[in-house]
Amino acid sequence: MSDLAALLDEIAERARRQPERGRVASYIPELAGVDPARFAMSVATADGQVHSTGDADVPFSIQSISKVFALALALGRLGDQLWDRVGREPSGFAFNSILQLEHEKGVPRNPFINAGALVVTDAVLGRHPPREYLGELLRFVRAAAGDDAIHINESVARSELATGHINVALAHYLLAHGNLTNAPELVLGAYFHQCAIEMTTAQLARAGRFLIGAEGMPRLVSPERVRRINALMMTCGHYDASGDFAFRTGLPGKSGVGGGILVIAPGRAAIAVWSPGLTDQGNSKLGTEAVERLAKATGWSVFG
Amino acid sequence: MSDLAALLDEIAERARRQPERGRVASYIPELAGVDPARFAMSVATADGQVHSTGDADVPFSIQSISKVFALALALGRLGDQLWDRVGREPSGFAFNSILQLEHEKGVPRNPFINAGALVVTDAVLGRHPPREYLGELLRFVRAAAGDDAIHINESVARSELATGHINVALAHYLLAHGNLTNAPELVLGAYFHQCAIEMTTAQLARAGRFLIGAEGMPRLVSPERVRRINALMMTCGHYDASGDFAFRTGLPGKSGVGGGILVIAPGRAAIAVWSPGLTDQGNSKLGTEAVERLAKATGWSVFG
Amino acid sequence: MSDLAALLDEIAERARRQPERGRVASYIPELAGVDPARFAMSVATADGQVHSTGDADVPFSIQSISKVFALALALGRLGDQLWDRVGREPSGFAFNSILQLEHEKGVPRNPFINAGALVVTDAVLGRHPPREYLGELLRFVRAAAGDDAIHINESVARSELATGHINVALAHYLLAHGNLTNAPELVLGAYFHQCAIEMTTAQLARAGRFLIGAEGMPRLVSPERVRRINALMMTCGHYDASGDFAFRTGLPGKSGVGGGILVIAPGRAAIAVWSPGLTDQGNSKLGTEAVERLAKATGWSVFG
Amino acid sequence: MSDLAALLDEIAERARRQPERGRVASYIPELAGVDPARFAMSVATADGQVHSTGDADVPFSIQSISKVFALALALGRLGDQLWDRVGREPSGFAFNSILQLEHEKGVPRNPFINAGALVVTDAVLGRHPPREYLGELLRFVRAAAGDDAIHINESVARSELATGHINVALAHYLLAHGNLTNAPELVLGAYFHQCAIEMTTAQLARAGRFLIGAEGMPRLVSPERVRRINALMMTCGHYDASGDFAFRTGLPGKSGVGGGILVIAPGRAAIAVWSPGLTDQGNSKLGTEAVERLAKATGWSVFG
Repeated sequence: MSDLAALLDEIAERARRQPERGRVASYIPELAGVDPARFAMSVATADGQVHSTGDADVPFSIQSISKVFALALALGRLGDQLWDRVGREPSGFAFNSILQLEHEKGVPRNPFINAGALVVTDAVLGRHPPREYLGELLRFVRAAAGDDAIHINESVARSELATGHINVALAHYLLAHGNLTNAPELVLGAYFHQCAIEMTTAQLARAGRFLIGAEGMPRLVSPERVRRINALMMTCGHYDASGDFAFRTGLPGKSGVGGGILVIAPGRAAIAVWSPGLTDQGNSKLGTEAVERLAKATGWSVFG
Repeated sequence: MSDLAALLDEIAERARRQPERGRVASYIPELAGVDPARFAMSVATADGQVHSTGDADVPFSIQSISKVFALALALGRLGDQLWDRVGREPSGFAFNSILQLEHEKGVPRNPFINAGALVVTDAVLGRHPPREYLGELLRFVRAAAGDDAIHINESVARSELATGHINVALAHYLLAHGNLTNAPELVLGAYFHQCAIEMTTAQLARAGRFLIGAEGMPRLVSPERVRRINALMMTCGHYDASGDFAFRTGLPGKSGVGGGILVIAPGRAAIAVWSPGLTDQGNSKLGTEAVERLAKATGWSVFG
Repeated sequence: MSDLAALLDEIAERARRQPERGRVASYIPELAGVDPARFAMSVATADGQVHSTGDADVPFSIQSISKVFALALALGRLGDQLWDRVGREPSGFAFNSILQLEHEKGVPRNPFINAGALVVTDAVLGRHPPREYLGELLRFVRAAAGDDAIHINESVARSELATGHINVALAHYLLAHGNLTNAPELVLGAYFHQCAIEMTTAQLARAGRFLIGAEGMPRLVSPERVRRINALMMTCGHYDASGDFAFRTGLPGKSGVGGGILVIAPGRAAIAVWSPGLTDQGNSKLGTEAVERLAKATGWSVFG
Repeated sequence: MSDLAALLDEIAERARRQPERGRVASYIPELAGVDPARFAMSVATADGQVHSTGDADVPFSIQSISKVFALALALGRLGDQLWDRVGREPSGFAFNSILQLEHEKGVPRNPFINAGALVVTDAVLGRHPPREYLGELLRFVRAAAGDDAIHINESVARSELATGHINVALAHYLLAHGNLTNAPELVLGAYFHQCAIEMTTAQLARAGRFLIGAEGMPRLVSPERVRRINALMMTCGHYDASGDFAFRTGLPGKSGVGGGILVIAPGRAAIAVWSPGLTDQGNSKLGTEAVERLAKATGWSVFG
């Protein structure tokens, strides 16, 4: 496994030298101010070890990666009923598109586009106050990571609330189609707070271990659900670049606009990478390249 | 492995009793006349064995499953240049949709929707006559299956030529956008003939072994390409039901309107199933359910 | 002109006997409770006379017909600058569609679909409080009709505020694209109040006289603007049934979901009709048929 | 009426000095080679006079303006049955868009977009050979214009046949949806020939007189049909710029990619203008401006 450590350092070194780093998200000051030179990668392997490289002790905003944890919670609470309200298909559109919603009467294509994630958050909220849900979500993530220091950045959440107009539009649109049971403000408040969870790559890789599906890993959801969540990450985890991510890495992953990606190598490892610069589709540019290298060097592709 | 034989028989028995079998494709008489009660399943495992159940010696029209073999050939001939002309993303639309083409200037989303498959066939044709390409494709499929009896059903090809108006429209649309280098008639002729290849599930399972990516299997394309083709089958192999197939089976697969599905369990097996009744998305209804059962019973999901 | 009175009575009589009356809007109780048997028609001719038939003294909710008055006000205040923020093309989509907005970056196709009307209301609001705008709008309508009794139904406005989720979504979507300068709540409040203006057909026909473009009529906007507003009513006044209305009546008109239509016969008359039952496109079914009969009998089509 | 002659000369002079002339259609050599400096305008008034300015004796390719004559013929032959196969709504999309067809099962939105015009040509063809239809169409146009010299440019028709791939795609798409009764090749052949009719503006203005709807004008279709054809020209005659043309000119018109526009001032005049440079929407740039000036100076707007 010292091979893995060396590999990670080599990947980080290569990332450091990359001149083309993508563009850092700029819609809120908390994200816009992040240094594009940051890079970190951590791998939590099925044998219990965690290897890291780069800025692996610097917390970043996990943003849409939180959708994975929220989905796990929602499935635990509602089971397959959830699928009455959200689909399981890649959308073919951007993360925040409202187009498909109009054609398909308010049922979002999958739980990882914004509209779908709002439905998931609404479903898991049920009749409970957002504060309760957020507490439960934090407990889940902390248990998964084995780290009680993980927290929500309130300032990020407030900035999102002030600028997330497309998400507000999506929530009201879902409400209009009867696919929101709580007030939009409640759901949006909960959603923006969940997106504002901060972690280091070391924390995130550990938090992802429950999806490895191996002995000795935290068992927070059933094996069948692990497989299904991984399947959704594979087909829908990178919005309209999901096919490309699967093609290049052969692994299921979920990206966030903060520049993080959580990737699962089933049976082997949970991988977290962070590089703030994004592609046009809103996924971490160097993060994707780093996962591609790692998958190639380790042969961890699920596809043979 | 007698377990596997018993499992297949149990799956076939269950399929036999299913009253809801979907609707058999009816656009050409050769498909419309197929008995909806047919069911067959074959599994070619990495140890060289093939287990079958049901009508595994009855040939059926593989139709869009042929796109997998054509893609393998095209990548062998053109390499990554192919990706200048066709994308790698799930389309979010039906198999024969022309919508995305208009928005994206004639570059189909992926090689498994009809428009993308026409581009692949055009690319692999190059300047060669269709007859030559079809000969090469048959040689490829026969070598993969180890069976020289595999052939093209001319009558099916002719029927398709007479009724495939949407595909004709797609070809001319691609031509209009400069993404077809041969005359539409040539490409369509080659495409309809490739779709008219007939195989039994036993032949198809064997033909799929080159995608298992295991020692001792036929080595027709490089390991990296095996992984990539599997990735595309996972994200795009079932049109706008690809996400659902991945969710339910955890395996990459490619369906055809004749009711067949080729599924790969990387490192383990190639699976072929046939049941002519289709879902609304054009995929075999009982075939999908059979693969779901097999994946569950064997634990072959790639996702943990 | 006693001919016109007789013609109106004949049209009303025919409407009375019509068994197929369309469906009354049901999204708020104030509209859902309206008697579908109601029918009224009034014609204010260029010679200063007003002829009415049916329930011409019963006020109804003019709803989207208010967009005509708001547009006239907005053009008076902003002139052609308004066209930087909203287009002049029929949209090809439903009145409340959000699809086109996504493709065209938040610039609504025309001022008569909901998104466009929200932009118009936002533009005319400027930095003034909604109360001031609504006062001005009422003064405009009252001056046009020569009737100070015209008022806003507060209960309708409040119901719309409570249920108009799609409009809320549209407003936030416009904000996200930088095409709303006031807080969505302010714009929506003003918009829902403007839609809640109530008039009888007699009042509405008189209020429409400023668009006849004839001597002696109220001169509230310039002749050039009269022509342009009429042109927009012709091409965009009935959402995705605008072409059909022009085809059948040959006259520009603007419909409202309350079942009213304001129609202009340039140089000749302003026509108001009310029948609460709607077509699938949200336009008054019998109202349209009545205008068609009137246009045919009088030869008032603008098209020869 | 010497005023009108002077007005036309002033408009032509202004057009001559315009540096921004739009872009000449370049998809076939016969259109690409036309001098962008050409400009002609002719007005046939209801009193029987014709006034012209500029290159009014130079024939140009009327292209989509032919759709007006084909529609008149088709309505004469099929009556309102035609509307079972084609709609009467502006499409909101480009002239050659295939998008709407997929959503609406092969029924084109209106007879003036390409798909709709193909349906009209197919309908009027019936079981007759294209040659017969083209003969009839020419007789109609010649009778309307009172000029037997009007002809079809075979070389233009052949060029269109060789390059009109999008139209070929549209025809096959219509066939796939059961909305084409003849072989696509027949319909396309007839369509491309009809588009290749050549006229001078003087001929075209005279040919348009049957749509003026005044005494003494050629009576080729019923007054009701005159009104309806004018209505369709108003709402759909300029593709996705129809609203703008109505807004600016207040008159119904039909444009062609050859740079011509036929405009009707009901009760007053038929106007033909020609300037080869096009806007992004495919309509004559200076032609539109010229009609706008003429309408303003004469007060011929139908809207007051």
